Amino acid sequence: MPADLGAPAPLPVSFADVSKAAANIAGAVERTPMRLSRTLSDITGAEVWIKFENMQFTASFKERGALNKLLSLSPQERKSGVIAMSAGNHAQGVAYNAARLGIPATIVMPLGTPFVKVEHTRKHGARVLLHGESVADAAAFAYQMRDREGLVFVHPYDDPHVIAGQGTIAVEMLEDAPDLDMMAVQIGGGGLFSGCAIAAKHMKPSIEMIGVEARMFPSMHAVLRGEEPICGGQTIAEGIAVKQVGEITRTIARALIKEVLLVDEPHLEQAVNLFATVEKTIAEGAGAAGLAALLAHPGKFSGRKVGIILCGGNIDPRLLASVLTRALVREGRISSLRLIGDDRPGLLGRVSKIIGDTGANIIEVNHNRLALDVPAKGAEFDILIEARDAQHTQEVIDMLSAAGYPPRRM
Amino acid sequence: MPADLGAPAPLPVSFADVSKAAANIAGAVERTPMRLSRTLSDITGAEVWIKFENMQFTASFKERGALNKLLSLSPQERKSGVIAMSAGNHAQGVAYNAARLGIPATIVMPLGTPFVKVEHTRKHGARVLLHGESVADAAAFAYQMRDREGLVFVHPYDDPHVIAGQGTIAVEMLEDAPDLDMMAVQIGGGGLFSGCAIAAKHMKPSIEMIGVEARMFPSMHAVLRGEEPICGGQTIAEGIAVKQVGEITRTIARALIKEVLLVDEPHLEQAVNLFATVEKTIAEGAGAAGLAALLAHPGKFSGRKVGIILCGGNIDPRLLASVLTRALVREGRISSLRLIGDDRPGLLGRVSKIIGDTGANIIEVNHNRLALDVPAKGAEFDILIEARDAQHTQEVIDMLSAAGYPPRRM
Repeated sequence: MPADLGAPAPLPVSFADVSKAAANIAGAVERTPMRLSRTLSDITGAEVWIKFENMQFTASFKERGALNKLLSLSPQERKSGVIAMSAGNHAQGVAYNAARLGIPATIVMPLGTPFVKVEHTRKHGARVLLHGESVADAAAFAYQMRDREGLVFVHPYDDPHVIAGQGTIAVEMLEDAPDLDMMAVQIGGGGLFSGCAIAAKHMKPSIEMIGVEARMFPSMHAVLRGEEPICGGQTIAEGIAVKQVGEITRTIARALIKEVLLVDEPHLEQAVNLFATVEKTIAEGAGAAGLAALLAHPGKFSGRKVGIILCGGNIDPRLLASVLTRALVREGRISSLRLIGDDRPGLLGRVSKIIGDTGANIIEVNHNRLALDVPAKGAEFDILIEARDAQHTQEVIDMLSAAGYPPRRM
Repeated sequence: MPADLGAPAPLPVSFADVSKAAANIAGAVERTPMRLSRTLSDITGAEVWIKFENMQFTASFKERGALNKLLSLSPQERKSGVIAMSAGNHAQGVAYNAARLGIPATIVMPLGTPFVKVEHTRKHGARVLLHGESVADAAAFAYQMRDREGLVFVHPYDDPHVIAGQGTIAVEMLEDAPDLDMMAVQIGGGGLFSGCAIAAKHMKPSIEMIGVEARMFPSMHAVLRGEEPICGGQTIAEGIAVKQVGEITRTIARALIKEVLLVDEPHLEQAVNLFATVEKTIAEGAGAAGLAALLAHPGKFSGRKVGIILCGGNIDPRLLASVLTRALVREGRISSLRLIGDDRPGLLGRVSKIIGDTGANIIEVNHNRLALDVPAKGAEFDILIEARDAQHTQEVIDMLSAAGYPPRRM
């Protein structure tokens, strides 16, 4: 190669920046556990190592970047204070660490942000302003406030100090598990991925850095192919539902990424469920995306030592309850059975007795009086039952059939 | 005191036994984390330290005692094999560790044990026999099998080696948090409590050992008062729903316990919910009983450094989903509103629009056509709504009232 082309331009964040960040934040953030999961390894066919960033105080990795950024401020900037826009983990990461350092913090959240999130952030002493119908409106308002009040804006991802802070996760992962062949790392705006890539590729140049995005928000996937991203939809991984990746983060990703894998909703759900049922730990949708990638693309990881980051645990309890229950429906433990009978009195009683005798529970009964697919004098019930397992559900169906009430599974 | 009365009889398990157990099982069981929870400390008013025994491979502490017992067997006994009766954590603790040591294991479970538990135990290579309508029947069958086949019975709690193994938890707790003033430890049969009491009172004689039982199963509570325990009911803490504590465990408890606290179901539910929502970790009912005691009896622990043991995470996903959802109902995020209107067409449409405009979700609608508390031509609906929080629910109620449809909260 002709010498005058020179070396490639250095990346905007260096390993020295990440090392400095690690020293800066040591002791103030948790050094979270990094553990091999034997059961998830059996399930996925890879050797799965999990970094439990949901065990940070605010239950997400965002504290690392936020704290490193706050520590970079001049005395004057610290006195004036900071502003951030987020309804999620970044809000708490900034508010909590600003309070620890005595820096005034303002957090802008869109209108309609759940009260519990507002409260969590206020509890850390931050001024919370609810403004804007959308995230974009709220961000525009936050930039106006920054200019009007002379505050420092703490970007959730497109900032070298934030990126370097997130990179400390990969340092700890490779210290605890130096044999990793690959990392599968979530990409929202790209801060977590790019920080980890800087660190991991320096510490172990052979490591393969895989990005993971929700299929509904394939922003980096598109950018790296020179395409316009088409984003939208109700993903359970709202923490990485970002329409526009950062400028700095895309430069780093372009240089260090092997590929971006997309994961769809059923795999995200399955991953949240597996973390709960196998690892006894709680992952939000975005936090489970690394595991979802292993489930969705097993061929890419088979037999390799793979590090994944359970990067956040702040899932809405109702969503978690729904994910757990839907998994039981998929496994055949909860089923809806439709029964059609003659309209002799006592049908429901006879059917209920049969179900009860098998040891299954009836959760709900609906009598479809207006159903047209039965004779006017017939009766149609939808019975939601809970059995011990799929085999037990089949027993219930067999018993009902034998008694002359063959059910249809809905 | 006259010298000829002598010293009190030594307890059936010594600290040396626990120390030996710790050396025996080191490396084969997880040294689980012991962490201060700042948020749970704020909520309870005590300084709460949590031992995360749900991070054992089989997600419960039972491995410690089971492994220590298995390691105590003679070569001949190891060859003949072991038998245990359990449908729960003890079954997996025995099966998993027996497989690791190459000891044949038979596990007897009552008829009707969920398939998934049978499978988990079989996966470890154990022979699983389903026998007996009740736990007592299954136990009687297991003793017959032991005699017929010359096996060693691994008792879930009333065995010195098992007790010594469970005591290793307290050793680790005090190594990691030597300043503890108290421990609040679950009592089912008493193995966990008595092992931990032996260890903790030796390492730190000033420590107060509090036993915790579900109010529905106050076995040790009654025994220590010389009363006959009255047990029964569907507790979510089925792991400590034991009608009869052990002989050895009651001797140790009598000598070392300060008192037994009873916890009722709402506090057990609240504790499971707090572990999930605050600590992002999954506790079964019995595993959350220590925290439940702090919630139920705050005056006993206020301002003290208290160690609790999250001793198991094997909760049924449907039960967990139900606990999470019920907490949202208690917090006013999910509410059932009853509306009575005239029967003009479009009532439901108008009401639904008002609710939708506030940003709340309608989860379910029931039209009570046969309600007698409304005029024959009136209409009554029960509408289940999900709001962002209690304040938002109130907004919905206010908007409906202002529109002439004042709802009744059910």
